[in-house]
Amino acid sequence: MRAEIITIGDELLIGQVVDTNSAWMAERLNEAGIELYQITSVHDDREHILKALDEAFSRADIVLTTGGLGPTKDDITKHVMCEYFCTTLVEDSRVREHIHELYKERPDVLNRLTATQWLVPESAKILTNRVGSAPIMVFENEVKGERLKVRGEGQNSKFLIAMPGVPHEMKIAMREQVMPFLEFRERSQSELQNGASAYSLEARGEIIHRTMMLYGIAESTLALKIEEWENALPQSMHLAYLPKDGIIRLRLSSYGEATKEEIEQQLANLKPLIAGNLIATEDLPLETILGNQLKARHQTIATAESCTGGRLAAALNAQSGSSAYYMGSVVAYDNRIKEQVLGVKHSTLEKYGAVSEQTVREMAEGVRALMNTDYAIATSGIAGPTGGTPDKPVGTVWIAWATPDGTVAECYHFGVAREREQITQRAVTAALVELIKSLNTKQ
Amino acid sequence: MRAEIITIGDELLIGQVVDTNSAWMAERLNEAGIELYQITSVHDDREHILKALDEAFSRADIVLTTGGLGPTKDDITKHVMCEYFCTTLVEDSRVREHIHELYKERPDVLNRLTATQWLVPESAKILTNRVGSAPIMVFENEVKGERLKVRGEGQNSKFLIAMPGVPHEMKIAMREQVMPFLEFRERSQSELQNGASAYSLEARGEIIHRTMMLYGIAESTLALKIEEWENALPQSMHLAYLPKDGIIRLRLSSYGEATKEEIEQQLANLKPLIAGNLIATEDLPLETILGNQLKARHQTIATAESCTGGRLAAALNAQSGSSAYYMGSVVAYDNRIKEQVLGVKHSTLEKYGAVSEQTVREMAEGVRALMNTDYAIATSGIAGPTGGTPDKPVGTVWIAWATPDGTVAECYHFGVAREREQITQRAVTAALVELIKSLNTKQ
Repeated sequence: MRAEIITIGDELLIGQVVDTNSAWMAERLNEAGIELYQITSVHDDREHILKALDEAFSRADIVLTTGGLGPTKDDITKHVMCEYFCTTLVEDSRVREHIHELYKERPDVLNRLTATQWLVPESAKILTNRVGSAPIMVFENEVKGERLKVRGEGQNSKFLIAMPGVPHEMKIAMREQVMPFLEFRERSQSELQNGASAYSLEARGEIIHRTMMLYGIAESTLALKIEEWENALPQSMHLAYLPKDGIIRLRLSSYGEATKEEIEQQLANLKPLIAGNLIATEDLPLETILGNQLKARHQTIATAESCTGGRLAAALNAQSGSSAYYMGSVVAYDNRIKEQVLGVKHSTLEKYGAVSEQTVREMAEGVRALMNTDYAIATSGIAGPTGGTPDKPVGTVWIAWATPDGTVAECYHFGVAREREQITQRAVTAALVELIKSLNTKQ
Repeated sequence: MRAEIITIGDELLIGQVVDTNSAWMAERLNEAGIELYQITSVHDDREHILKALDEAFSRADIVLTTGGLGPTKDDITKHVMCEYFCTTLVEDSRVREHIHELYKERPDVLNRLTATQWLVPESAKILTNRVGSAPIMVFENEVKGERLKVRGEGQNSKFLIAMPGVPHEMKIAMREQVMPFLEFRERSQSELQNGASAYSLEARGEIIHRTMMLYGIAESTLALKIEEWENALPQSMHLAYLPKDGIIRLRLSSYGEATKEEIEQQLANLKPLIAGNLIATEDLPLETILGNQLKARHQTIATAESCTGGRLAAALNAQSGSSAYYMGSVVAYDNRIKEQVLGVKHSTLEKYGAVSEQTVREMAEGVRALMNTDYAIATSGIAGPTGGTPDKPVGTVWIAWATPDGTVAECYHFGVAREREQITQRAVTAALVELIKSLNTKQ
């Protein structure tokens, strides 16, 4: 099965909102072996939506849409879908009851506009939106829709699922309703077709992606290093280089032709070539990799942050269960806090300044002692855009790692044409990667 | 002028990367009065890219692409563009020199693959990529390309700009090269056409968006509250409701027909209707709003975080100059840290637990004293997915605000079907909004 996503909303096209829904949905589709061909973002505009539906159905079997299902005037998706599938709105008592239950403690929300949310297209199958009022609608070409029938050209496999654009409503709907529905469809289709046609082969072939994470090497240098290996890859495998924030993710993909074992064999051949720069053999957030290392060792960590200002802490506790290894952070923007809370010596700050090897070492050791942890990371730097000096230009960042084996510190220069956000992001990356590498070598 | 964006890369369609480029570019285009019609994400695939270019040019005058310009094998955009515009690659000495300068301290990067980066399409105008090796290419239909000529149908206004997909390279290119180029084109075109045709009127009309930020009201309740006002809006204005993380952004847009004064008059009529829920009259991050309030008052703030784990700190120092009002944070995941560093009484933790009014009050007062600030915010809650109890289910969050006028605390229940990330995000939003509202009333 081939899918497309259409995200609907003017806010996407004026840049007021970043479309995070598509990537999340793409991941889920891929996990289920459904190829996602294209993502299209369109305006809250009747003509535009109709055209995008036509185009998407000319290429794909499943179209997923998000957005435009709210109760307010600017949201027109439901009406446009009715037009596209030649159906009309009818009251759905199950949806009405669900919405009454949802807002039972907020009677003001059970108003005339919310009441339009239990009007649903007659020909659509309605899936429950457990956490919101917008119904999730599934249209299939078996039903009344004339337009889709034409596009479907006799195949009975084309359908459309319209979901709300609010990310957490969409995610719960995808997980609990849409993906099980798609997986069931895919299974029954494969069985029907009995493996006879190329189409069903494609539908049943497994999509495999395997990602290696590398640090400290340029993209072109890496490509030359592994050139011979890459050139010898079978036609059915595809290699992609994804550089971001100093990390290169090297992804080997196979769309249904190679076996898992064949992929693993290729990776086994690759690994010795990239050993010096390899951080991880899965595509995981750095904080997850480090968290897993610490959990496995029953060790703990704390952070003292100046220029990264809480981002290192936020990264480290992004996952549930982080309280097992992550004790906390002191975000010491002010020098007084560095002294009072972290115990950095007044004379150190006086003599070397806040952005210095001496200060960052004392910060790391200070927070390690304060929070009584095995490891501690400290950062101090100039994130810009102001605050730079000729000696210490914007982007200068000192990072220290205090460990049971002593403290090491390093100076980075992240400033070349980077913005505040990138500089702090690079600092967080470097802070995590170096500890990950050091723990890797100790295994 | 009407534009479209095509983002190129398999990583977007398997969900490995969120397309943040498009929203950023959309904002820049909008600021310049260039309408963005559609965003399309396609695979690193020749056919797919060619088709998407054809479709985009059938609707728009300018097509911006990002991605696929790296030196490695998986990046094919440059070659596909050559095909589309019937041109070939030639060496560009300026690009070669620029790349040599860029990597002068990293000779390993000046390798055979990097050398392919100074091969550029003969018919393209090359703009400098100050921070990367991928050249930015501008194709116009005056040049050799046959394909675009057909699509352009005699208009001499269609062109394509291909940019790298690495966000910070794209941003610098857009800001320093592409936007000035587009603005110049737009100006000269308007002058040429002398305001005579509908096309140039559209090109010169100003796109105005004005956004109000509201908190503490449901979307449908708000819509009913302002229904009369909304229905009386002139045809040329469009209202959109954008709910996210408990905030509703209400955007009034005009595409070139209304004057600024007319829009402001409408907003002046709106404001009394929404006064109780209005946080700000611009679309700004909450931390910027609070930062501006504190800067104007020469006051300072600190934070003590448990469940938000550094996110409040990260938000508060996201902008340059935050060190003027933001002193720091203690991220106290462990109870011991709450006692030792923040001075929460052992008996309080024993008696009421970490997630309690008493603890969060002592945290806020503790960090306010420790960092000697005017304000302090503290959070303590259960972000889940584990750790909930019948008494304190996942999503229970206590927030306290310590101010010169005393300390207030409130308990929130963010847990209904929300994930860890949303719960902490809601807590950060509530923590900032309540202080913003309280400072607003003191003005």
